[in-house]
Amino acid sequence: MILALAGGVGGAKLANGLARILPPGELTVAVNTGDDFEHLGLHVSPDLDTVMYTLAGLNNPETGWGRAGETWQFMKALGALGGATWFNLGDLDLATHVERTRRLAAGETLSAITADFCARLGIRQRVVPMSDQPVRTMVKPRSEPPHQPSSRSWVGGRQPREGTDSEWLPFQDYFVRLRCEPRVSEFRFDGVAVARPAVGLVQTLGDAALSAIVICPSNPYVSVDPILAVPGVRAALAQRRVPLVAVSPIVGGQAIKGPALKMMRELGREPSALGVARHYAGLIDGLVIDRQDAALAAPIEALGMRALATDTIMGDPAAQARLAEAVLGFAGGLRSA
Amino acid sequence: MILALAGGVGGAKLANGLARILPPGELTVAVNTGDDFEHLGLHVSPDLDTVMYTLAGLNNPETGWGRAGETWQFMKALGALGGATWFNLGDLDLATHVERTRRLAAGETLSAITADFCARLGIRQRVVPMSDQPVRTMVKPRSEPPHQPSSRSWVGGRQPREGTDSEWLPFQDYFVRLRCEPRVSEFRFDGVAVARPAVGLVQTLGDAALSAIVICPSNPYVSVDPILAVPGVRAALAQRRVPLVAVSPIVGGQAIKGPALKMMRELGREPSALGVARHYAGLIDGLVIDRQDAALAAPIEALGMRALATDTIMGDPAAQARLAEAVLGFAGGLRSA
Repeated sequence: MILALAGGVGGAKLANGLARILPPGELTVAVNTGDDFEHLGLHVSPDLDTVMYTLAGLNNPETGWGRAGETWQFMKALGALGGATWFNLGDLDLATHVERTRRLAAGETLSAITADFCARLGIRQRVVPMSDQPVRTMVKPRSEPPHQPSSRSWVGGRQPREGTDSEWLPFQDYFVRLRCEPRVSEFRFDGVAVARPAVGLVQTLGDAALSAIVICPSNPYVSVDPILAVPGVRAALAQRRVPLVAVSPIVGGQAIKGPALKMMRELGREPSALGVARHYAGLIDGLVIDRQDAALAAPIEALGMRALATDTIMGDPAAQARLAEAVLGFAGGLRSA
Repeated sequence: MILALAGGVGGAKLANGLARILPPGELTVAVNTGDDFEHLGLHVSPDLDTVMYTLAGLNNPETGWGRAGETWQFMKALGALGGATWFNLGDLDLATHVERTRRLAAGETLSAITADFCARLGIRQRVVPMSDQPVRTMVKPRSEPPHQPSSRSWVGGRQPREGTDSEWLPFQDYFVRLRCEPRVSEFRFDGVAVARPAVGLVQTLGDAALSAIVICPSNPYVSVDPILAVPGVRAALAQRRVPLVAVSPIVGGQAIKGPALKMMRELGREPSALGVARHYAGLIDGLVIDRQDAALAAPIEALGMRALATDTIMGDPAAQARLAEAVLGFAGGLRSA
């Protein structure tokens, strides 16, 4: 049994690689829900959907998010009616949000709905949200120093006020509406204090057959940290009897996708796989880095973890499976060590 | 100023004919909302949408409902997720329901939302729901006599119990899900006792420039009666100083569209334009019937109203405008009489 902790695109790819090499009953993917949000009255779970669509083979490999063969009639009509069009919802994708929202309103848990959707889409692995309670990632933009006025315009012409909650942005506002343009200084996960890990996550963590835990190559700050912040998850990981390995989402000084590298710079962290290692130091047993970052293996191992340099760019499902094999082999080596 | 009371397809067609011959500021269309319903968590207003799409030139002339160029990706994906597919929601159409639901939840009235949607779609006539309060048409199926067992299966195997509310069907369940198959015995309009006519309807009824009121060729029982049942509407019509004419939705012993004729038979009414005249007797000043029903003019006039026989089948917008001209000419003649 393998437990994978995953965010969106990178997480979905490695989860898919693991799904291709493991028997169906031996993989649980626990997915970040910190970037879930309510939009147009609909509950949208971007990371869960990316994982679900990818495992079902319905994902759009070009964009990394959304569905293959997607159409945009709804968005076109919504724009004509004056509706908000900054967050794209495809016609196929929309069915997921409408039906999930309906079932949540009827009292079902996100876990139950996700399990049912996955079963209907032919997914034989277990996909669970990190929690059935709402957790909402918030992003605090960095206030510009007075001598360097911000070129951004603020709503209502107000200047950002340091230390007040009015600065915090809901994640999708930062990520999609503002295209990650604000410089970040801090993250918080609203609701996490009263959240509980989803039953499926707890069960897998306590499963006697569990042989490794994998942190997928997802954004450490806004994809993995929300999962780790759910009360009990860090403690369970600390008490684990199996190897915990992560895969760096930073390759050759670039983020494969998304704002991870930009965030590292803005947070004053080392913008490389070494920075990822430092972020997870004390938590993980090993870090998988890309072959082109092999020179970082020594400084990473100096942090008290093992490093494996291999090909981590998952261009197609075969590459996803190859990386999954390498990751599990690496973890297996740590277990026997 | 003309006030038209309209249901779905037939109402939308005559409203469109009136819109083509009247200056934009001189037509108000008050639309049945008794067949509105909540579906998949969305507020759906079928008649309002049919009128709106028709006046905007966005309607599907083949089906009579929905939008031209509609696609069905959402429904396809919804079915795959196990969602309810008995009520078709096209990808374009869905934008109307999602955005309206969002705005209703934000506290806007159905009137305000409808006015804004219409303005954005280039409609220059006033389209108002009959009421901003929810009114829900319910249909009571006729219990089959004991010696003639029903072939229908009832949910849970229960037999229909006469006189209990469990028999009443929400309108869309009757109309779409059960395809009007149950024989009807009665209708009621839940919520109507505490509903108020929409401001736009009240304003038009009280407008000094009002010159005629037209009941469109819509279903008398489930499209027009809900409007008449809104408290104050019948009284305002009774106190009118202008002609009130209706157009028969029954032509040559056939309903142009929908279950009107079937309902008349099941209710024991004369299944013809004469039955329509009897339904509106005491309320209207004149009834427009089709030329092929000209022989019914005399018995209709014996009920105390005038009758006009003309071409009432509105095959295209030109025919809609011709009928609108005939209806207004008829009403004008009644005014001067």
